Amino acid sequence: MALPDPLTRLIEELVRLPGIGPKGAQRLAFHLLKTPREYTDRLIEALRDVKERVTYCSVCNNITDVDPCAFCNSDARDAHIICVVEEPQMVSSIEKTREFKGLYHVLMGALSPLQGIGPDELKIKGLLARINAGVNEVILATNPNVEGEATAIYLARLLKPLGVKVTRIAMGVPVGSDLEYADEVTMHKSLEGRREV
Amino acid sequence: MALPDPLTRLIEELVRLPGIGPKGAQRLAFHLLKTPREYTDRLIEALRDVKERVTYCSVCNNITDVDPCAFCNSDARDAHIICVVEEPQMVSSIEKTREFKGLYHVLMGALSPLQGIGPDELKIKGLLARINAGVNEVILATNPNVEGEATAIYLARLLKPLGVKVTRIAMGVPVGSDLEYADEVTMHKSLEGRREV
Repeated sequence: MALPDPLTRLIEELVRLPGIGPKGAQRLAFHLLKTPREYTDRLIEALRDVKERVTYCSVCNNITDVDPCAFCNSDARDAHIICVVEEPQMVSSIEKTREFKGLYHVLMGALSPLQGIGPDELKIKGLLARINAGVNEVILATNPNVEGEATAIYLARLLKPLGVKVTRIAMGVPVGSDLEYADEVTMHKSLEGRREV
Repeated sequence: MALPDPLTRLIEELVRLPGIGPKGAQRLAFHLLKTPREYTDRLIEALRDVKERVTYCSVCNNITDVDPCAFCNSDARDAHIICVVEEPQMVSSIEKTREFKGLYHVLMGALSPLQGIGPDELKIKGLLARINAGVNEVILATNPNVEGEATAIYLARLLKPLGVKVTRIAMGVPVGSDLEYADEVTMHKSLEGRREV
């Protein structure tokens, strides 16, 4: 005899989420069943709100509930420097450092021929339009993996002829780590990028 | 500059779920933002349905969308034998074996003085009422840990005077495991519970 039908359906929907397997989905579903009604009501409202109120900025493609987003609309940010990232969540990672005061541009992915993602699938046209409007430097902060690296090289070739300074974030051994465990590619990048002290 | 408000709220609600930390909640929230609207609509409906349509069986306390539940209402199940478990999800675990054909009784927890859970917090009264109605055997399938064991001992003392056969599920080394990694308590239970071949 199976679980009640609504519970089975909830498990089926939860298992589609990333990082949630069949066991985890069942555990979540039973938890949601036991939890006070007020919690699920708040969760449902939060879900609905995210889908209804959060959109993408028409300038930089970052997520936002106002268009243009708070970054693009701000006087406190330096409009001469644009940091290019793959996904909106990387904007948060960079903001956490409180180091960067320029603007962002979200590509919405990275070049990946295997997955059929070419330059036309990325938000590159908008980036070019923004650069023509007086930008001094573009920081390429795509991921330090094959796709991110390919995207950075592609963009560098595209942007340099426009007379803009193009930089790439540093790759090397992460702070707080142990050199013993560094892989050889990272160690190579770390040596290659050494600076005089 | 922070994330859009609705997204922050969704992350806050997700992080309350068991097994989901701050990073996982953020990952889920960004995924839910990207996912087609139809998926979140289905998820919302499944959540609402679970809270509205799934209740607890008035006889055995198992989760159900009809009362009494499919087990208690079935002619195909043996009403002379009751398997006592802590939580509704354990019913599924036992059903998966396709071995047990009797009825269930869900206690809704286990004795735990530290958490203030005494006999009055568990669904024991209903169990006693069912036993008076002609049950031959009660299988105590509470968890093989301190709380489950205490609950089993408590119930055994309570039920035996009523003239019903009371059994406890076997504890021992799990099938497919390696004796080298068995802890001493499990190994002790395994030796203690040995059977002639």
